[in-house]
Amino acid sequence: MHTALKQAVFEANLALARHGLVTLTWGNVSGVDRTRGFVAIKPSGVAYDAMKPEDIVVVSLEDGSVLEGRLRPSSDLPTHLALYRAFPSVGGVVHRHSTYATAFAQACRPIPCYGTTHADHFHGDVPCTRFLSPDEVAGDYEGGTGGVIVERFQDLDPEAFPGALVPGHGPFTWGKTPTKAVENSVALEAFAKMAFLTESLAPGAATLPACILDKHYLRKHGATAYYGQEGARPGGRHFSS
Amino acid sequence: MHTALKQAVFEANLALARHGLVTLTWGNVSGVDRTRGFVAIKPSGVAYDAMKPEDIVVVSLEDGSVLEGRLRPSSDLPTHLALYRAFPSVGGVVHRHSTYATAFAQACRPIPCYGTTHADHFHGDVPCTRFLSPDEVAGDYEGGTGGVIVERFQDLDPEAFPGALVPGHGPFTWGKTPTKAVENSVALEAFAKMAFLTESLAPGAATLPACILDKHYLRKHGATAYYGQEGARPGGRHFSS
Amino acid sequence: MHTALKQAVFEANLALARHGLVTLTWGNVSGVDRTRGFVAIKPSGVAYDAMKPEDIVVVSLEDGSVLEGRLRPSSDLPTHLALYRAFPSVGGVVHRHSTYATAFAQACRPIPCYGTTHADHFHGDVPCTRFLSPDEVAGDYEGGTGGVIVERFQDLDPEAFPGALVPGHGPFTWGKTPTKAVENSVALEAFAKMAFLTESLAPGAATLPACILDKHYLRKHGATAYYGQEGARPGGRHFSS
Amino acid sequence: MHTALKQAVFEANLALARHGLVTLTWGNVSGVDRTRGFVAIKPSGVAYDAMKPEDIVVVSLEDGSVLEGRLRPSSDLPTHLALYRAFPSVGGVVHRHSTYATAFAQACRPIPCYGTTHADHFHGDVPCTRFLSPDEVAGDYEGGTGGVIVERFQDLDPEAFPGALVPGHGPFTWGKTPTKAVENSVALEAFAKMAFLTESLAPGAATLPACILDKHYLRKHGATAYYGQEGARPGGRHFSS
Repeated sequence: MHTALKQAVFEANLALARHGLVTLTWGNVSGVDRTRGFVAIKPSGVAYDAMKPEDIVVVSLEDGSVLEGRLRPSSDLPTHLALYRAFPSVGGVVHRHSTYATAFAQACRPIPCYGTTHADHFHGDVPCTRFLSPDEVAGDYEGGTGGVIVERFQDLDPEAFPGALVPGHGPFTWGKTPTKAVENSVALEAFAKMAFLTESLAPGAATLPACILDKHYLRKHGATAYYGQEGARPGGRHFSS
Repeated sequence: MHTALKQAVFEANLALARHGLVTLTWGNVSGVDRTRGFVAIKPSGVAYDAMKPEDIVVVSLEDGSVLEGRLRPSSDLPTHLALYRAFPSVGGVVHRHSTYATAFAQACRPIPCYGTTHADHFHGDVPCTRFLSPDEVAGDYEGGTGGVIVERFQDLDPEAFPGALVPGHGPFTWGKTPTKAVENSVALEAFAKMAFLTESLAPGAATLPACILDKHYLRKHGATAYYGQEGARPGGRHFSS
Repeated sequence: MHTALKQAVFEANLALARHGLVTLTWGNVSGVDRTRGFVAIKPSGVAYDAMKPEDIVVVSLEDGSVLEGRLRPSSDLPTHLALYRAFPSVGGVVHRHSTYATAFAQACRPIPCYGTTHADHFHGDVPCTRFLSPDEVAGDYEGGTGGVIVERFQDLDPEAFPGALVPGHGPFTWGKTPTKAVENSVALEAFAKMAFLTESLAPGAATLPACILDKHYLRKHGATAYYGQEGARPGGRHFSS
Repeated sequence: MHTALKQAVFEANLALARHGLVTLTWGNVSGVDRTRGFVAIKPSGVAYDAMKPEDIVVVSLEDGSVLEGRLRPSSDLPTHLALYRAFPSVGGVVHRHSTYATAFAQACRPIPCYGTTHADHFHGDVPCTRFLSPDEVAGDYEGGTGGVIVERFQDLDPEAFPGALVPGHGPFTWGKTPTKAVENSVALEAFAKMAFLTESLAPGAATLPACILDKHYLRKHGATAYYGQEGARPGGRHFSS
């Protein structure tokens, strides 16, 4: 059962590893089937090169109970579930401890938008949540991690800001599909490194002018987007990435 | 049609990816056939490992209209066209968001010439353009990006300075062929990183003495160049790189 | 003889090299068979791609004398032996000069715990020993290197802190098996880089709140650990990493 | 003719590229046959993956004239020759623009010895020469580059310090064989990066205590060296790296 969803989640996990930005088993990708109420996610602590499609664990979106699979799901599952429940447009979620994005999270800082590489993916600074309280840590820690992200998005659009930093921890990203969530994760790490370098080269550097931020974000994501092949002339080949 | 030009542009795009400095689909290479007035360029948003020679799009140098190809050309096409029209000696153009060069662009800084690695490719600091005005951003944004580069070169020789930074965006490089443009892009990223490290090691570091800058630039590029195999003894094999 | 131990140590050495973090021949992994009193270790100065399982040297845990093998053991052997003798729970030891961990060692600084990546592996800052005295350097230098590590752990649990930095030298890590020691070495290097970046982004950054440090360390290592597949439902596949 | 020397130099050039630290065609390795007075060196500007053993150029140690080979020798040949003539124990020379060592050269700074990784290869700080004068640049530039290195070694032993930085340019390293020269080049780049990071982590960091510097250098290089397999028991296999 759930073969297509498991395969998509399996491949997105491998794509994450292929980008060379995952150390050991740190990182997990999930996907959701909203029609049937299922979430598929990487098993906990399994090496990428030993993982098979059938190792992907399928759980209930409603209560997280395991529906299919013999392995434990990622311990970060409750965070993924909280994001799927709060953000109806999200189809895939990625968590990993990529180096530069995690450094910003450890510095408890949002990532300022210094350039168009960033603006092509986020419509402004990458938000950083508050710390969980000691009570939240002692309680449902992983669920609470999703909670502080959702709380931070009370006034933010999760489509325009497809990710957030949890301080002292690392980044979560998302997208319409698991593949898109991986792309946002890869992009986040790349422009986090550029932001680090920019601040080293020019302390107090100015962020990107608003008109250029809007231009870049909207040429890829707005109703009149003209980047990539989506909506191209009939007969054109379409690509998922 | 245009098989040789498309093949050259295809291979130069793959060479760019092989150097390991392209993330996702960020980056594009084009080439020009000035005799026939054609430009060949990477399609927009297509993954490097999925791209085939026939995906390369051929457009008119004069007006940018698509002459051959079923995919949309790179959204940066108008910038490439502006450079080909203004710089008659240019045969290939590269745009990508390479990490260190982009960091200098985001810091709105030229790259100072601190060493011979730099001087072997640029005859001085890598220039940085002005920002586009809000009106230019709202109008023909990509064409205007080419415009600010051309404007910056009013008093500069595009052969001696085969690239520029657009602030908040990233580098554009060029060369006599698409392959040479890729080489300049790779070199730019390498010496941009060295410049970053030099400033960290020695804040306020002096730039390279002028006599050494001239010596290195001219031993590779002047009328009496003696680096490489060009102009070597008859019978010697010649190499394009 | 000792085929299984030698094979395990051989594979752990190759795993270390595969993670891309070993330069030339710098790095060595050992393992112990406490029942029989044997230690197996990489030969000195042998390239990873030229090494065979039979090159692994077997020595006596008690006095370091070579029991099997035609090559010299790693010159760091006495350090490994000192750790095995002092820390009864340790089954494997790794020494290498990985870049960021060595930089902290050269800066004579413990690695502060800034995030959960660190807390997943060490239950607090990575300790840094004192320098050896000139007399200790002139005497049994490699044994003394083990001695200053053991001295530093008088009040520390080597299971909760599976590694240490020796100033001006580099990191030693350990674990229940050679494979686990390699994992701790890889993790140490990754979070050492994150700590470096965190301090650059936020000088004076605060370390991770204690409640999150405890939570992350204990969800992977405590009696009630729920990360990974150990202790998972019957029938579940188990993984060593 | 000269097959063995050409093959050794060819392989050492490829080893340099395999370490991943050469960009484009920047870098060259040579070797000398002192009995016959021949030097073999990489041809100028040839890509590593296109190079064949027969492309290696053989020249006279005495006057640099080409004895065998249809391609031009590296433009850095006169520097190599100056080093072979001045340092009788040197059998191989490497020049390349490796990132961190070049950054120190661009900062016009010796590389301080902060740790044992450095002390395993150099018996103290990596020396930095003076700049060439404008007259020296205008004259025999490449020969003069060798000249300022030789001048810097008036009071230094080139066996104990197997390399130097030329300011604004980059590192030259050497060794008893081309392979050893490559090893010193790889080591130099690795500990240059560690030195950079050490200074960032601890401005004003102290260099390695002299007794540890001596210990590490001499355990690998002194008359009583006990690192590696050289001089090991009869029957032991020997390794060149």
